[in-house]
Amino acid sequence: MTKLKFPAIALLHQPELSAALQMRINTKTKPLGSLGQLEQLALQIGLIQGTDHPALHCPAMLVFAADHGVVEEGVSAYPQSVTWQMVENFLSGGAAINVFARQSGFNLVSVDAGVNHVFGERPNLLNRKVGNGTRNFARQPAMTSQQCVIALKHGIDLVAGLSGNVLGFGEMGIGNTTSAAALMHKFSGVPLAQCVGAGTGLSAEGVQHKLAVLERAVKLHHHVSDPIALLATFGGFEIAMMVGAMLAGASRRMVLLIDGFIVTSALLVAARLQPAILDYCVFSHCSDESGHRAMLNTLKARPLLQLDLRLGEGSGAALAYPLLQAAVNFLEQMATFESAAVSERSE
Amino acid sequence: MTKLKFPAIALLHQPELSAALQMRINTKTKPLGSLGQLEQLALQIGLIQGTDHPALHCPAMLVFAADHGVVEEGVSAYPQSVTWQMVENFLSGGAAINVFARQSGFNLVSVDAGVNHVFGERPNLLNRKVGNGTRNFARQPAMTSQQCVIALKHGIDLVAGLSGNVLGFGEMGIGNTTSAAALMHKFSGVPLAQCVGAGTGLSAEGVQHKLAVLERAVKLHHHVSDPIALLATFGGFEIAMMVGAMLAGASRRMVLLIDGFIVTSALLVAARLQPAILDYCVFSHCSDESGHRAMLNTLKARPLLQLDLRLGEGSGAALAYPLLQAAVNFLEQMATFESAAVSERSE
Repeated sequence: MTKLKFPAIALLHQPELSAALQMRINTKTKPLGSLGQLEQLALQIGLIQGTDHPALHCPAMLVFAADHGVVEEGVSAYPQSVTWQMVENFLSGGAAINVFARQSGFNLVSVDAGVNHVFGERPNLLNRKVGNGTRNFARQPAMTSQQCVIALKHGIDLVAGLSGNVLGFGEMGIGNTTSAAALMHKFSGVPLAQCVGAGTGLSAEGVQHKLAVLERAVKLHHHVSDPIALLATFGGFEIAMMVGAMLAGASRRMVLLIDGFIVTSALLVAARLQPAILDYCVFSHCSDESGHRAMLNTLKARPLLQLDLRLGEGSGAALAYPLLQAAVNFLEQMATFESAAVSERSE
Repeated sequence: MTKLKFPAIALLHQPELSAALQMRINTKTKPLGSLGQLEQLALQIGLIQGTDHPALHCPAMLVFAADHGVVEEGVSAYPQSVTWQMVENFLSGGAAINVFARQSGFNLVSVDAGVNHVFGERPNLLNRKVGNGTRNFARQPAMTSQQCVIALKHGIDLVAGLSGNVLGFGEMGIGNTTSAAALMHKFSGVPLAQCVGAGTGLSAEGVQHKLAVLERAVKLHHHVSDPIALLATFGGFEIAMMVGAMLAGASRRMVLLIDGFIVTSALLVAARLQPAILDYCVFSHCSDESGHRAMLNTLKARPLLQLDLRLGEGSGAALAYPLLQAAVNFLEQMATFESAAVSERSE
């Protein structure tokens, strides 16, 4: 397999900065610790940016789309054509992610990582098509190793063109919860039955069929163990490209805003390649896709939102962003006990 | 006791509108139900406003402040003077609620419901002072019945001056978790020990002392059972004024955005007086104050956020507001399967 050099990711062990941030947080006019998860978020963003005065600017929402050969097996409630139709919907501004990205102030970037459709040159669509969808991994590896490396490299290169310091991740791809469930199983060791969910809305029977397809596929490829080879075998082009973009984002000390089940499966791969990436991740939500909770648990991740979302597209990430802004804003704008002349605890 | 006429609150039983809203939600380009709690929120806001095209405008955050005689018993980690000092902090823009209200686009209105301090005439502070703090309810009723009625009436009247259709509720008052715990116990029947928490940060020993004070007080006033009399006995001026404002807000078909432990205790009282109010309430968060979860459970309320906040001031309500905007925005701005020419389920 072609060797790919991954960008270096700095370890965030900065005890002096950490203490300085904690001091700033604690002197604000509020009971100690009373802003809960927002305080941890302020600390984390400060450490990522290497400053006790963190600031967020120009957040980008990267939505990667691709098709999946495994849909041949009847694993989705929707036909494959919905992938390109939804990309068209992104381009004309009518999807959930358009609405939420607009509301939260994201620059929305749609990426054709390998949709089975010819879009032509379109404004607001990055053409990084690796192929017209993956092959059916129930029969053969989803990608060639060369395709996998190309997808990773496109993901890495994409991030170099962005000027902000927050990267939201989203995806679109009919069949991609099947791919993500396989990756979850192989990278976390969680039993397959706990990795499989209803996706866009399978019946209980449909979920059982999806599980059977996955069991067969996992058996077929049981000899594969190298992380990149696993990604090539079970992944989607959008998932592989996200892995690359995540690694590049962390290496540039950006905040990585992780969405739901599929995005988190890409992170499982990225974290196997470079564990230091996890300190750069904010987990926006726990989705209603069965398996996401267990996936987050294997990463010891505590999500910000739990709203029973199961839409993908980066919708949870866009919805959580105001909480990141709130974390940075309280740190920057709140008065201290001293500056506001408020008495401290009497105990 | 002086009789007070409460504003009428319309029951939200509107099956035709409900069906029309659900239809609009279901035809949007997303898997059925995939926006989870946001879909329920869109439905609820539509029902409150009586339209299948709901819109939010000019949200107001009412922060009611008052002092509590029960602080004499040593039930708070902070001295009573922090109440007025924090009101000053609100007026100069340095508190958490200033930061979050600004971020979320709220008009912040601070109300002196009964702080033990002379502020004089100040811009952005409504003077509705009922007294210089309540009396110590461990020894005697916190208010006279006349004071309680005045506080309720001020709350009702306040709302008439507001032009928006969202009311956020917040509060400030050293000692007010003690008052709220007593109200919770009397209005929900939950054992006192499960109603008492650390407030602004009591030690385990401090919590035990607070519980002992409350047990004594509840015993002293065991004969009181009328809702208004209970409010007068255990309440604070800020709590009573919130009860009035909540009732008036619902009668004007405003969305009531409920904050944490103290605000929810006011709602317990309001809901006893007029149960129809509950349909108008959005529960912004479950706070870290032990007891809030049980309090929400007695109301069968499902909060939007769980971020371990325990700050009060309306901070959780302000932080949750973007989710209400997202609910209304997806309903108004997303394409339908038909308008975007996206295929529906193939099952």
